[in-house]
Amino acid sequence: MTVKFKRVALIGLGLIAGSMAHAIRAAGLADEITGYARSAETREIARQIGLCDRVLDSATEAVEGADLVVLAVPVGAMGPVAQEIAPHLASGAILTDVGSVKQAVIEAVGPHVPAGVHFIPGHPLAGTEHSGPRSGFATLFQNRWWLLTPPPDTDPVAVQRLTDLIRAMGANVEIMEPAHHDLVLAVTSHAPHLIAYTMVGVADHLRRVTEGEVIKYSAAGFRDFTRIAASDPTMWRDVFLTNREATLDILGRFTEELFALQRAIRMGDGQQLHDYFTRTRAIRRGIVEAGQDTSAPDFGRSQPPADAAGPAPNPPAQKAGEKPVA
Amino acid sequence: MTVKFKRVALIGLGLIAGSMAHAIRAAGLADEITGYARSAETREIARQIGLCDRVLDSATEAVEGADLVVLAVPVGAMGPVAQEIAPHLASGAILTDVGSVKQAVIEAVGPHVPAGVHFIPGHPLAGTEHSGPRSGFATLFQNRWWLLTPPPDTDPVAVQRLTDLIRAMGANVEIMEPAHHDLVLAVTSHAPHLIAYTMVGVADHLRRVTEGEVIKYSAAGFRDFTRIAASDPTMWRDVFLTNREATLDILGRFTEELFALQRAIRMGDGQQLHDYFTRTRAIRRGIVEAGQDTSAPDFGRSQPPADAAGPAPNPPAQKAGEKPVA
Repeated sequence: MTVKFKRVALIGLGLIAGSMAHAIRAAGLADEITGYARSAETREIARQIGLCDRVLDSATEAVEGADLVVLAVPVGAMGPVAQEIAPHLASGAILTDVGSVKQAVIEAVGPHVPAGVHFIPGHPLAGTEHSGPRSGFATLFQNRWWLLTPPPDTDPVAVQRLTDLIRAMGANVEIMEPAHHDLVLAVTSHAPHLIAYTMVGVADHLRRVTEGEVIKYSAAGFRDFTRIAASDPTMWRDVFLTNREATLDILGRFTEELFALQRAIRMGDGQQLHDYFTRTRAIRRGIVEAGQDTSAPDFGRSQPPADAAGPAPNPPAQKAGEKPVA
Repeated sequence: MTVKFKRVALIGLGLIAGSMAHAIRAAGLADEITGYARSAETREIARQIGLCDRVLDSATEAVEGADLVVLAVPVGAMGPVAQEIAPHLASGAILTDVGSVKQAVIEAVGPHVPAGVHFIPGHPLAGTEHSGPRSGFATLFQNRWWLLTPPPDTDPVAVQRLTDLIRAMGANVEIMEPAHHDLVLAVTSHAPHLIAYTMVGVADHLRRVTEGEVIKYSAAGFRDFTRIAASDPTMWRDVFLTNREATLDILGRFTEELFALQRAIRMGDGQQLHDYFTRTRAIRRGIVEAGQDTSAPDFGRSQPPADAAGPAPNPPAQKAGEKPVA
């Protein structure tokens, strides 16, 4: 049984929508893909690279006659866009989104959804630190999780249809409560991103260490923070503003823990530090075992050549995972 | 001009010493490599895999007749090891170390160094999150920085000789003041590592989100923190205890910044957040331009196949960089 949509409308043509366009085409999942982006420049690039079959100059035109509409704009823009397109949605259409926060999107979009349209909020845990219409690629969702948070009364046939599409793009689907989604993501994504942004900001401000040296010697750990902190500013501003409560809760816990470790350093409590660092290794093992990363060393950056003297601890396998942005 | 040592003695047989053994052999930089590790199990593994030409059962035997001795043990163990081997060091030998902290190593080792032995403290900014005698490989130091912090009165011929060896292993050498080294590394490595350990610890403690979910959905950013937080506990305990002042200084600045961003989230100040996240992008660009990472998306984990529909933003080039552990 192959899922097929007549017309998929992508509203917002950034990394996620672009990757969906590539993946949908690669697997032949839609007869036609239409697209719209607020920026004329983005629409122009999308047309040049043939990202969609048709790029329209308004969201209302793009959703006309679509049986699947995907809102792929920053979380803060979801509500206004939904309000604009609502009168133009076809009866029986599925409306989904790819926002990193779910409760706020449901509150903003839900009231505008007309009867007969199936609103199924979603969030693909996939991405890179790049953004824009050129940044997408067909394999972005391979082996990634795609969380759906449909309201309890959602038509199960519509949920199944969207699930089939997502699976056909290579991702795994999980159904989740919106509030639980927002808490889990605060831990696994939102708090880590804010922390990375903060550490990069500290380095930027530090006068005694020049920026040149921070950059030159960045490979010692800091570099990975800068990669996270290079993600799209608008998207992340909206994530923090709309998942405020859960993010602040996790950051509060983080600060408590950090103070405890700072105190251990100040007091010279080596045992406490060693115990703590030993516990954190177990979580890492779990992630490798769960297939969400490999145990190849060095973030996959170092691939000892086959003729290198001596064995590498693990085969430098091609990574299946990706660095999602939210 | 090719540098060549008669006998290189490696004290401690973990990731760095093991990689040195492979690199020295691959480039033919020594007639003989001897080794010693405190753990009988490590010595046995090193013998089985032929890591050194000879693995000795004491550090004093290992350094006998060596013209280069490398201390590759945790920073906290440097002093006692130096004291033990000091009477057995050959006159004219070069003594170096690979510790992630330099002032504390100089204080601990310096007083034991006999006249006629050239003590040149060093720190290769290279590594992975793995440890132990099996974890090394010959290309670990390729295109990495190797910082040396020789005292002002060090024999320049000895410094040149060590520099030649390091360059022959593929690394770039820079001379630096020990105090400045410790501050730069606090920013680029030590504080980021403590922060990663802390975030992983928070996730571990969180009761409302099960560990299973944290692991399952780790790909959303958290995963990279767990990789950093899987590094060797003993090594890192010693780093924080011996670079206490600089690390606490940077962590204090980090907490200030984090509080400012938390406040912006709480007050709903989107402009402040957006401005901050925009600034941090510039640092990332600098790192890519400095050749310490590539702009390929996804930590190099995602490699869009050549036949993927649509262009990837950057060629998924093989990474030259590596994730150093200190």
